[in-house]
Amino acid sequence: MKIQSVGIKDIQIPVRIREKNGGLQNTVAAVSLQASMPGEYRESCVHIFTSVLNKYMDEMSVTIFPELLAEIQEGLRAESARLEMSFPYFIEKKAPVSKTRSLMEYECTFTGAVGTDDDFILSVKVPITTLCPCSKEISSAGAHNQRAEVTLNVKFKKFIWAEDLIRMIEESASCELWALLKRPDEKYVTEKAYENPMFVEDVVRKVAVVALANKDITWFSASVESFESIHKHSAYAYVDSNEVR
Amino acid sequence: MKIQSVGIKDIQIPVRIREKNGGLQNTVAAVSLQASMPGEYRESCVHIFTSVLNKYMDEMSVTIFPELLAEIQEGLRAESARLEMSFPYFIEKKAPVSKTRSLMEYECTFTGAVGTDDDFILSVKVPITTLCPCSKEISSAGAHNQRAEVTLNVKFKKFIWAEDLIRMIEESASCELWALLKRPDEKYVTEKAYENPMFVEDVVRKVAVVALANKDITWFSASVESFESIHKHSAYAYVDSNEVR
Amino acid sequence: MKIQSVGIKDIQIPVRIREKNGGLQNTVAAVSLQASMPGEYRESCVHIFTSVLNKYMDEMSVTIFPELLAEIQEGLRAESARLEMSFPYFIEKKAPVSKTRSLMEYECTFTGAVGTDDDFILSVKVPITTLCPCSKEISSAGAHNQRAEVTLNVKFKKFIWAEDLIRMIEESASCELWALLKRPDEKYVTEKAYENPMFVEDVVRKVAVVALANKDITWFSASVESFESIHKHSAYAYVDSNEVR
Amino acid sequence: MKIQSVGIKDIQIPVRIREKNGGLQNTVAAVSLQASMPGEYRESCVHIFTSVLNKYMDEMSVTIFPELLAEIQEGLRAESARLEMSFPYFIEKKAPVSKTRSLMEYECTFTGAVGTDDDFILSVKVPITTLCPCSKEISSAGAHNQRAEVTLNVKFKKFIWAEDLIRMIEESASCELWALLKRPDEKYVTEKAYENPMFVEDVVRKVAVVALANKDITWFSASVESFESIHKHSAYAYVDSNEVR
Repeated sequence: MKIQSVGIKDIQIPVRIREKNGGLQNTVAAVSLQASMPGEYRESCVHIFTSVLNKYMDEMSVTIFPELLAEIQEGLRAESARLEMSFPYFIEKKAPVSKTRSLMEYECTFTGAVGTDDDFILSVKVPITTLCPCSKEISSAGAHNQRAEVTLNVKFKKFIWAEDLIRMIEESASCELWALLKRPDEKYVTEKAYENPMFVEDVVRKVAVVALANKDITWFSASVESFESIHKHSAYAYVDSNEVR
Repeated sequence: MKIQSVGIKDIQIPVRIREKNGGLQNTVAAVSLQASMPGEYRESCVHIFTSVLNKYMDEMSVTIFPELLAEIQEGLRAESARLEMSFPYFIEKKAPVSKTRSLMEYECTFTGAVGTDDDFILSVKVPITTLCPCSKEISSAGAHNQRAEVTLNVKFKKFIWAEDLIRMIEESASCELWALLKRPDEKYVTEKAYENPMFVEDVVRKVAVVALANKDITWFSASVESFESIHKHSAYAYVDSNEVR
Repeated sequence: MKIQSVGIKDIQIPVRIREKNGGLQNTVAAVSLQASMPGEYRESCVHIFTSVLNKYMDEMSVTIFPELLAEIQEGLRAESARLEMSFPYFIEKKAPVSKTRSLMEYECTFTGAVGTDDDFILSVKVPITTLCPCSKEISSAGAHNQRAEVTLNVKFKKFIWAEDLIRMIEESASCELWALLKRPDEKYVTEKAYENPMFVEDVVRKVAVVALANKDITWFSASVESFESIHKHSAYAYVDSNEVR
Repeated sequence: MKIQSVGIKDIQIPVRIREKNGGLQNTVAAVSLQASMPGEYRESCVHIFTSVLNKYMDEMSVTIFPELLAEIQEGLRAESARLEMSFPYFIEKKAPVSKTRSLMEYECTFTGAVGTDDDFILSVKVPITTLCPCSKEISSAGAHNQRAEVTLNVKFKKFIWAEDLIRMIEESASCELWALLKRPDEKYVTEKAYENPMFVEDVVRKVAVVALANKDITWFSASVESFESIHKHSAYAYVDSNEVR
């Protein structure tokens, strides 16, 4: 049985991620590596993986992935190699009215593969607010709303920053989130969500429309999970660009 | 070193729980057992635990716990023994307007100890809606709201049903939840939450007032965690009856 | 944008699962439902889903899924519908030497789809022991071993019981697990694992060989994650039948 | 109802932690804050908390906590304030034979309180290997072993580094773990664990003996959870210094 994927999962390492604004951000990544190997390189697998990772962990970015993966593949003499790293990523935001600064945390994932299928997927998870259109329409006052989470995975031909994907998603929600809001900000976000009622399928459609219009994105999938405030379960919607183009 | 606690954690077993309405409910419990033992009964520990559990798992209820624990303690010749079991518990509810029936799921925990500290704690986790008073007050329309979770732990001198604790909590929220709501029900819950704005500290205070008034409850702690729709973090409040009586 | 998937996630319901031995097992399932719908049936989506689920939850089995899904699809006038349910599943096992009876818990998942892609996938997660061949070979005594988890997903043309997939996996490990072992049993499992050293890729290959030989299985994927006792991370191996046939 | 605890839970922030060797380590912390407040300072609560945290997050250490908490308490005019932060913490280790360097990850928690109960608790979670004495004794070859996790919480009168608690625990196990091992290292750890068979209660006792002997430690609790390789459940042992002194 020739082809199989062997590797390690869920090792934590400190990394530095290149930011859009030019800076380097210190964070901690959960890393998985798999390789398809013809023969028996098991021990060296982890060893080569770790030494390559150590070499690059001081400046990890989307552009460095192909080089890093090629080095792993060559070191392992593998048919293919695949690396996935997920990490909390922080962006400073200014509150909408008071302009108070605070850090929002997003989960980002880089998934890269070399060998049989060269590929790179950039993924972001972005928390947002959804406000229910049906609830607003039928009620004399108020409307149920809740935290939801959008996951967007993209492949691209020209480089795209995680910051830009996050912005694209936050502009597609009933309202975006901040870590710190003062009273005038809370008034703003409450009223903005109430003015923009959206079902999960509305959010996913809006994200999809923007992603389809971006000529640098060659593939994407988007999902929204809304932690309903009136139920114990979630509402969910999903779109894959292959099915809508 | 005489006293220590040894046991097993996180074993799953099917159990049948006695309901307030007289029925028996089939569910699945995660069970942990610890015992303080003078000598060396390690192998038999798991063996005695499992055989006692097998004997009682067809009808598990708060009233059976003392007997079950005494049997474990005696079997192990332990100074003390402690058993904790957590399980999803289902209650059929009727939607507030359409009266549509559906099952709500709650997490219940029985914690019992015999020996040095005879004790029994009944715990319930109840999902609710909280609607922010500040957001309502300052906004021209709407108010942010979200799913929250109340945890209530009680000791009692006269038996109390989980059903009664759950009811007590649901009546202390901006609004309670149902698994299935039709349009008139959704109108009802939206308007009810809007009429009952509550911070996490308001919910925990209301639960505490009702629990303090119940003469059968000898101790309780209550906490509320609200999964804020305008933030990525939770709001949290906690009360222990020893500090407020 | 025509095609999209909308539904609910992570609702818990009590179900009864048909066992291979003819019995019905009470357990609790986490259920997700998605449908692709041309128009606007959002409210009825959850309503139809819940009423169909209520109708069938007293006897859920692989054979009932197509009927259940067709009813959901028709009720929603959906292009396609997809239902996934995961539940703890208990099998009574006899310890290898003492023949002591105890219940082992496995996680099972039924995933069914009707409409554009009619499909049914049966998945089982089975905990096993792996013992490292390299560690055994190079050490003067002992060998590191650990708990591992095998996940097997299969499609079939002729019905296969979860019980049979679980057995197939347990026979492919360094040793299988039991919930309750007496001293002679513990001697047996220790010696058996030591006699059967296997890397994660050995386990996944053995599972794949047996699955490939089964003419009723039309597709499968298998993975093994080993919670290494000498590392904080896992070892991992994966095989998809499309790549090895 | 005067006394209650109100705050926020599970906000993620980047922090820099002072290391024993003098360096500063970049990592990401999950932070919770609670305060007991006489009146109504809800909005300012998060605001003061965030600004104080921002001021100190560039160099967080055990010694800075009292100052940080006092500032929070004063800012909130709170009777008491409590801050908890958990973060992955990395220590470079050299493999036992080959001396290959790699980073091990540990979970550390700082819990500080000012006001009614001034307190500071330092907690570490350390993964180790346990090898079963019973299995070794009764088997002709081999012995089951597995990954386990030790949690140690301490209060002290004279400052103790997390690095020293971790070392204390790693020396109390069947064997300690490394992220990267070459063949001679794997031989070493296999043989060392086989030479040092320990039940969970043996590990917890050994940790307790060392902690009791340390005059700077004024209180501790220690627990060990062993993810048994021959069962699906864990073995567990717990000691509190108040019960053994």
